[in-house]
Amino acid sequence: MESIRIGLIGAGTVGSGVIEILKKESNSYRENFGLDLVLAAVCTRTPEKVKKELQNFPSCKIEPDYQKIVKDPAIDVVLELVGGTDVAYTIVNNALKNGKTVITANKALISQKGEELFALAEANRVEIGIEASVAGAIPVIRSIKTGLGSDSFLSLYGILNGTTNFILSKMELEHLDYSEALKIAQELGFAEKDPTFDVEGIDTAHKISILGSLAFSQKIPLQSVQIEGITKISGLDIQFAGELGYRIKLLGLVRKIADKIEARVQPVMIPVKHPFANIMDEMNAVYYQTVYAGPGMFVGKGAGSLPTASSIVSDILYYGSRRNKGMISEKNLFPEAVISEANGALVRYYLRFTTVDQPGVLSEISKVLGDHGISISSVRQNEVEKEPVEVVVITHPATEENIKKSLKIIDGLSLIRHASVAIRLEDKF
Amino acid sequence: MESIRIGLIGAGTVGSGVIEILKKESNSYRENFGLDLVLAAVCTRTPEKVKKELQNFPSCKIEPDYQKIVKDPAIDVVLELVGGTDVAYTIVNNALKNGKTVITANKALISQKGEELFALAEANRVEIGIEASVAGAIPVIRSIKTGLGSDSFLSLYGILNGTTNFILSKMELEHLDYSEALKIAQELGFAEKDPTFDVEGIDTAHKISILGSLAFSQKIPLQSVQIEGITKISGLDIQFAGELGYRIKLLGLVRKIADKIEARVQPVMIPVKHPFANIMDEMNAVYYQTVYAGPGMFVGKGAGSLPTASSIVSDILYYGSRRNKGMISEKNLFPEAVISEANGALVRYYLRFTTVDQPGVLSEISKVLGDHGISISSVRQNEVEKEPVEVVVITHPATEENIKKSLKIIDGLSLIRHASVAIRLEDKF
Repeated sequence: MESIRIGLIGAGTVGSGVIEILKKESNSYRENFGLDLVLAAVCTRTPEKVKKELQNFPSCKIEPDYQKIVKDPAIDVVLELVGGTDVAYTIVNNALKNGKTVITANKALISQKGEELFALAEANRVEIGIEASVAGAIPVIRSIKTGLGSDSFLSLYGILNGTTNFILSKMELEHLDYSEALKIAQELGFAEKDPTFDVEGIDTAHKISILGSLAFSQKIPLQSVQIEGITKISGLDIQFAGELGYRIKLLGLVRKIADKIEARVQPVMIPVKHPFANIMDEMNAVYYQTVYAGPGMFVGKGAGSLPTASSIVSDILYYGSRRNKGMISEKNLFPEAVISEANGALVRYYLRFTTVDQPGVLSEISKVLGDHGISISSVRQNEVEKEPVEVVVITHPATEENIKKSLKIIDGLSLIRHASVAIRLEDKF
Repeated sequence: MESIRIGLIGAGTVGSGVIEILKKESNSYRENFGLDLVLAAVCTRTPEKVKKELQNFPSCKIEPDYQKIVKDPAIDVVLELVGGTDVAYTIVNNALKNGKTVITANKALISQKGEELFALAEANRVEIGIEASVAGAIPVIRSIKTGLGSDSFLSLYGILNGTTNFILSKMELEHLDYSEALKIAQELGFAEKDPTFDVEGIDTAHKISILGSLAFSQKIPLQSVQIEGITKISGLDIQFAGELGYRIKLLGLVRKIADKIEARVQPVMIPVKHPFANIMDEMNAVYYQTVYAGPGMFVGKGAGSLPTASSIVSDILYYGSRRNKGMISEKNLFPEAVISEANGALVRYYLRFTTVDQPGVLSEISKVLGDHGISISSVRQNEVEKEPVEVVVITHPATEENIKKSLKIIDGLSLIRHASVAIRLEDKF
């Protein structure tokens, strides 16, 4: 039987999940894959936490120096589970140079340094497994590379950040405002103390740049992803969306527009009857359109110790079984995409204006919109007892540029109480 | 560059889709996979239909005798796309014996003869690709084998038959009865003239026996799948389901119950808010629970020329790239599952009784249920102007055995107009 000797660096949430799965499932991997996964060495800052678990792996050593693991000729596969882009970069870089297969859950590293690292892997005739780096437990990367490998992608949409999806779900179901829902998410461990990375859409941007590059075989650099987070979404918008038959989701999306690529992260409104709209709480999902197979969707857990670890271990099995077999390396280096100017596309918009309660408000607003070629599909203004009045407009397809210009003028009118809100409708998928 | 020489047998709906994809995408496969997919020979009963298309493949010959293709030493991969279990069996059998990799979309063949054929493949050190045999364009088989390969399945639910899902969707959305919806499905080409295979659940049973065996690493023979189709579902049941917050779907399901396996195909009611309930029309989906990664779901097209062909071609790329690399064969031979007696499980039921309009009806019905230990969770009886009266009961968890016994007695009562209906609620997933 073939042995795969594993060096695990970083035994935190995901790393300890990997140890647990290896303990429980190694017999079944021998039986079902003919592979003996041997945990050979673990490097961690907190060895006392894993000491007891490691008694189940009598031949595993605790190695305080990760440099020794990445150089150890007895190790085949290095798991980089420390996170960040400093030490993690050094680990992956050195492991590849030493001919190790590398498995990582580190989307920041892959999104920022992927090109360099994949080139290094190719030069050293080894592979990097990144299934756990996007959408934790969902086997979406393998599916793009193999199951959908014969196909040609037209668009890929992701709900890829559990924190923001949890916050938006709580806001809707418990009628909370953003800050209240964020607080609950923080208390339950679904949001960090500093939630910027998640709520501003940066995490989703990392992930969509990775998925988009693989799906379209074109490099989509993180810098070319337009990013907008959820911090400006109010409970009012969520409520209006519901009344109109929509639900607000933070989407990462990559689409082909002629020969260009549109790549963005932003809150959009999705028809509530679409299966994609029913991905609630901390769940993740990827929806795609392709030339032959699509549309299709994958749904699953995006984070967590065992879910993410299950993807790490499936990468060990997959790349471990390919190691030293003269398999052609998977293609991970692509020509850079030509990014489309996003404001060229015509899409419908939800606009919300907070106004004084006096005659002529709607006429002034609609005049500005009309001056910019934006025609109105529907208007909703509920009866209220006191100011302000919320005026909701759904437009016919318009460009982002014209929407922005109009809102700038409208927000300067004296009848407007505070900054207007514009959210795109994604109703054509 | 590595060449994969393909012999295509059967150029009907799926086969002609394969030819189209190979024509359009071969360049990108050379670029992205380093594989040159060469269509070397085509065997079809209607060569005139593909003649024009094959002008794009100057080195491809039309070979009237499939026996020559399966023996041709210049062919690496044989595509069995003739369907059925007679000629198809001979093709696959002989191709394997001659050391060819086989790719097939034939769920009947795999479900009935899979064990023998996989053993033959192993003996000849080649592989069989079956991605297209279940859920057409959804890469669910590859996902079970690789992306979720590290995990351990607890349950797998499939909406695997587009015909029945289309009929059920039409019945609900257009308020039709079964026979009316069937007629539309037949007119649109979603149902065969003789729809038995689909509407009686046999097609789903084939597919769930294949998926279940792979997911649980236990052989689930077709004969041990309990099968119930959709022909007894009425528009009334669909309407009541909707009022109660449920939707009726024909599910194939495989579940672990202690050390046994439950395998069945039947119409069940799913909470309408569950993403699985929103798989409408001819779409397919697989929902799963596992120890580590799940729950999760895959959604996509289950049939059609190009969707199914896309899975065939992805199998060519996948198994073609593994060919002659000394890869360990995937495990496809499993010990036979111990099948649980299905009526042991406690589940909730929707019961519908068609009764005369007279006092005491509900009391008689509930007495029989009570005598069998079945307690009632809710009752709905709408006011009607003329007989019959429809009485709908949702039970607390009960065994199938007790439900059947009760209905047998109730259906013998003089107050019952015709056979009562029982549909399981799947509300715990």
